[in-house]
Amino acid sequence: MPLLKTVLKNELILKAARGTATERTPVWIMRQAGRILKEYRVVREKAGDFRTLVQTPELAAEVTIQPVDILGVDAAIIFSDILVVPDAMGLTYVMDEGKGPRFPETIRSIPEMARLRVPDVEDDLSYVAQAIRLTKLGLAGRVPLIGFAGAPWTIFCYMTEGKGSKTFSLARRSLFADPAFAHALMERITDTTIHYLQMQVRAGADLVQVFDSWAGVLDRESYRTFCIPYLRRICESISDVPVTVFAKDAWFATADIAALPCATIGLDWAQDAVWARTQVGPNRTLQGNLDPCVLYAEGAVVQRETERMLQRFGPNRHIANLGHGVYPDTPVDNVRRFVDTVKEFQHPNA
Amino acid sequence: MPLLKTVLKNELILKAARGTATERTPVWIMRQAGRILKEYRVVREKAGDFRTLVQTPELAAEVTIQPVDILGVDAAIIFSDILVVPDAMGLTYVMDEGKGPRFPETIRSIPEMARLRVPDVEDDLSYVAQAIRLTKLGLAGRVPLIGFAGAPWTIFCYMTEGKGSKTFSLARRSLFADPAFAHALMERITDTTIHYLQMQVRAGADLVQVFDSWAGVLDRESYRTFCIPYLRRICESISDVPVTVFAKDAWFATADIAALPCATIGLDWAQDAVWARTQVGPNRTLQGNLDPCVLYAEGAVVQRETERMLQRFGPNRHIANLGHGVYPDTPVDNVRRFVDTVKEFQHPNA
Repeated sequence: MPLLKTVLKNELILKAARGTATERTPVWIMRQAGRILKEYRVVREKAGDFRTLVQTPELAAEVTIQPVDILGVDAAIIFSDILVVPDAMGLTYVMDEGKGPRFPETIRSIPEMARLRVPDVEDDLSYVAQAIRLTKLGLAGRVPLIGFAGAPWTIFCYMTEGKGSKTFSLARRSLFADPAFAHALMERITDTTIHYLQMQVRAGADLVQVFDSWAGVLDRESYRTFCIPYLRRICESISDVPVTVFAKDAWFATADIAALPCATIGLDWAQDAVWARTQVGPNRTLQGNLDPCVLYAEGAVVQRETERMLQRFGPNRHIANLGHGVYPDTPVDNVRRFVDTVKEFQHPNA
Repeated sequence: MPLLKTVLKNELILKAARGTATERTPVWIMRQAGRILKEYRVVREKAGDFRTLVQTPELAAEVTIQPVDILGVDAAIIFSDILVVPDAMGLTYVMDEGKGPRFPETIRSIPEMARLRVPDVEDDLSYVAQAIRLTKLGLAGRVPLIGFAGAPWTIFCYMTEGKGSKTFSLARRSLFADPAFAHALMERITDTTIHYLQMQVRAGADLVQVFDSWAGVLDRESYRTFCIPYLRRICESISDVPVTVFAKDAWFATADIAALPCATIGLDWAQDAVWARTQVGPNRTLQGNLDPCVLYAEGAVVQRETERMLQRFGPNRHIANLGHGVYPDTPVDNVRRFVDTVKEFQHPNA
């Protein structure tokens, strides 16, 4: 399908990422396409299971666009899962309802890496590119579309542990017990991640975000040794669109991440705006970071806390978001109150 | 039983906590009495289940002393569980083998607090005091004995959620949605915790540690509002022995915790020694913080990383430990290598 470069009617997020002044703070929400919306649950039901929804471009595009229509956010993010990368590399994931993803097979040594394949991303993950193209058509330039991938460390965690964990001690032990393996697997994951993100940009993604969900189990030095070099390769490989890096709970690495060639740093709710600005300096955009639990309180509290957050970040180089994905049982009215508060807020000195 | 005040032959940890210079850095290990030792597993088997082991003073004292004999650590810590406090308050916990603790009943509102009782700690938790007295007799002054309790926030998390959680979003939501309830329950937990720790000191505990295992799910302001005041009450209520506060993953609160009247600040492995010293100033002792995963590597790596840690903390106001409890499947030889490395290390300029 030849792709016509659509003109974006709302470029707030791209401007903020590039450091251009915006008339107001842009806003989107991690996991905005998902269980908080009853309209999503209808499509999810139709798909039958999560994998089918992810792998059916028409359905993935449909749920990607829903929050733009329903919540009025300033960006869409392609509906997918970070685990499509290890999946394409030969480790098939299983979604146990209510229990999160699981890999029946794991990779814990260099010999075991022989079981991995080098995917042809354009072929194996063509369903994502197709979902992006369909989404771009459906959005018709209303808002930018965000592509994404998991950071190599987070994918590494899943590939070695086989499932979620509080400590990821199996993944971490390999950094000390078998660093050669750790680097080899990180390298392999990075190769595929780069191809995957580049494909998303070619398909039409207007910016990309790298999610390092399990960064917080490491420390500064481990992160510097085993993660930063691979994140650097990724950031350097994406030249056409702004890159956001979100390393959850990795406060100790915020300054190192800000030294990468990325545009935006995602912040969890513990990484306060003022503190974060001292870490990253003036030349990066900050994204975040309201505690998603605030959205369980009454509407007036949501508004008050959202306004306090906006004040702390100030009018420029900020993309409003939560500090983590929105929790599935959050009342939609409160999600809307959050979005509306950001859109209506006027900075006192702006 | 009348308690004779035994003279301690090894006071390294008490000296370090008080800021007195020591001939070498003292060392103990969180969860040192537990599954890493086959001798523990024998007693655990004999007890039948975890609750029985905790509630049988002779057995609890036996496993408390084991690591002093087997590993040569500089302190014992009474074998117990932080959940004995909510248990005494009327919420009975259940230990599902391999799955961690669970409360069949939860407390999520002020009306539900009516289900709680005000325990007579001396009576309801007499088994802990008795275990402490027996341990002191068995130790015969070889090393100090550490008493402990969970921090109110961590107990609050279990009481509201009913089980472990990655996000403790139910506990956190109440801070925003029902702060009056949050403060009321924190107050109640604090009252019992103070009585409980004071009883442990009367029974013979030479110092006490407060574990805030789930501190890391909060942010600076929530921690300041909902946790620090209660930790302050606890620290102020213990005047006879040094108090350690260990708030895992709560880097954002380290400076606030250091402003409490406590002697020692526990550090997880992400809170680097040099960084931590800038947060807490010169008048607090630091405890920690080797990544427990290092103990999965070969012995030479354990030694190298332990020595690096010791160098970063320097010779004074440091109690060596891991940055979290030792993982149950850690090879005992590596645990011993960690302890021996600390005991043999000579600081270059000391």
